[in-house]
Amino acid sequence: MRIITISREFGSGGRELGMRLAEALGIPCYDHELIEEVAKQNNMDVEQVSNISERDIQLYYPLTMGRRFASMLKVDTRPVQVVVALQEAIRRFAHQGDCVIVGRCADVILKDMEPLNIFVYADAASKLRRCEQRAPEDEKLSTPALNRLIAQVDKDRAAYRDLFSDDQWGKKEAYHLCVNTSGKQIKQLVPALAGYVNCWFA
Amino acid sequence: MRIITISREFGSGGRELGMRLAEALGIPCYDHELIEEVAKQNNMDVEQVSNISERDIQLYYPLTMGRRFASMLKVDTRPVQVVVALQEAIRRFAHQGDCVIVGRCADVILKDMEPLNIFVYADAASKLRRCEQRAPEDEKLSTPALNRLIAQVDKDRAAYRDLFSDDQWGKKEAYHLCVNTSGKQIKQLVPALAGYVNCWFA
Repeated sequence: MRIITISREFGSGGRELGMRLAEALGIPCYDHELIEEVAKQNNMDVEQVSNISERDIQLYYPLTMGRRFASMLKVDTRPVQVVVALQEAIRRFAHQGDCVIVGRCADVILKDMEPLNIFVYADAASKLRRCEQRAPEDEKLSTPALNRLIAQVDKDRAAYRDLFSDDQWGKKEAYHLCVNTSGKQIKQLVPALAGYVNCWFA
Repeated sequence: MRIITISREFGSGGRELGMRLAEALGIPCYDHELIEEVAKQNNMDVEQVSNISERDIQLYYPLTMGRRFASMLKVDTRPVQVVVALQEAIRRFAHQGDCVIVGRCADVILKDMEPLNIFVYADAASKLRRCEQRAPEDEKLSTPALNRLIAQVDKDRAAYRDLFSDDQWGKKEAYHLCVNTSGKQIKQLVPALAGYVNCWFA
């Protein structure tokens, strides 16, 4: 089975890379689909699941897991539910066949399936430019606000990963291939990455 | 011009990767050639140049460059000569046309030529195994000695890089592509990397 996981810095184009790579390989790409699936199952808002999945959980996790009697307290356990449901959704999607999965620590969660784990990154100027280009006209943030957002999202992703793995988010040792997209069009790199996938699983 | 630089952890197969990649692309690979060229020019032993190039220089550099009257002291200035000559050799080779250059901070030295900079790494077990397989029968080191050697060579390479750049050796941000060779045959990955080179310079 060819499972490719994409971890990525915010603004590096990792999501686009995942989608284009899946298209080039003729296999599905799971990204927002994971969130939608989990939201549906848990009768929750997509936005809510999306926030919990990479942000709130580290606030809740030590409390609910660390206290034996947490269930007796009035603790909101939805974040833990969501994380568990996300893990299950990732495993379920992966077992359906070859695919690309973007984010949500799929590399760690699917370790036993031996995925090819790609990390996508870029320099600060490139990430800023990409975010500016992608933002809808009516949602333009100032440059300092965008920089804060980029830093915050990556911090959340790193914290989310800490729940699952001792390997630090973004450290090259945890991945099989690290792709710097600075100053490059994603679509220019995709044919070569599809070739890399084919060599890897040959 | 297509200049590809290979930086690598000792035992990761970076040298083999550089040679095979050059072969796949039909362009020359410079590795030991740089050392030989500089040895010939400076009337020095190849072994001597090789040692200086990645080991001794950091011991000499602060002394010879930091003291205004160093030349009046009995300081051995050969290491600095060698580093300067290596830089010149790298520039000269690169200006001859498309090539792969292994090691010696070619990525930093040739920055203005916009090379594609690849970093090759692997996990500890893979590096150990590769070193064991490569050692001549009569030069087998014990596992602890090999581990010390691997750590020492990488430490020397990192220190050598510090002479040229503020970017830390091995940090993914300094490279365009980081390739983890753990458990893989180099030759399996080379066609895809050749494809990456072609996409990059397209």
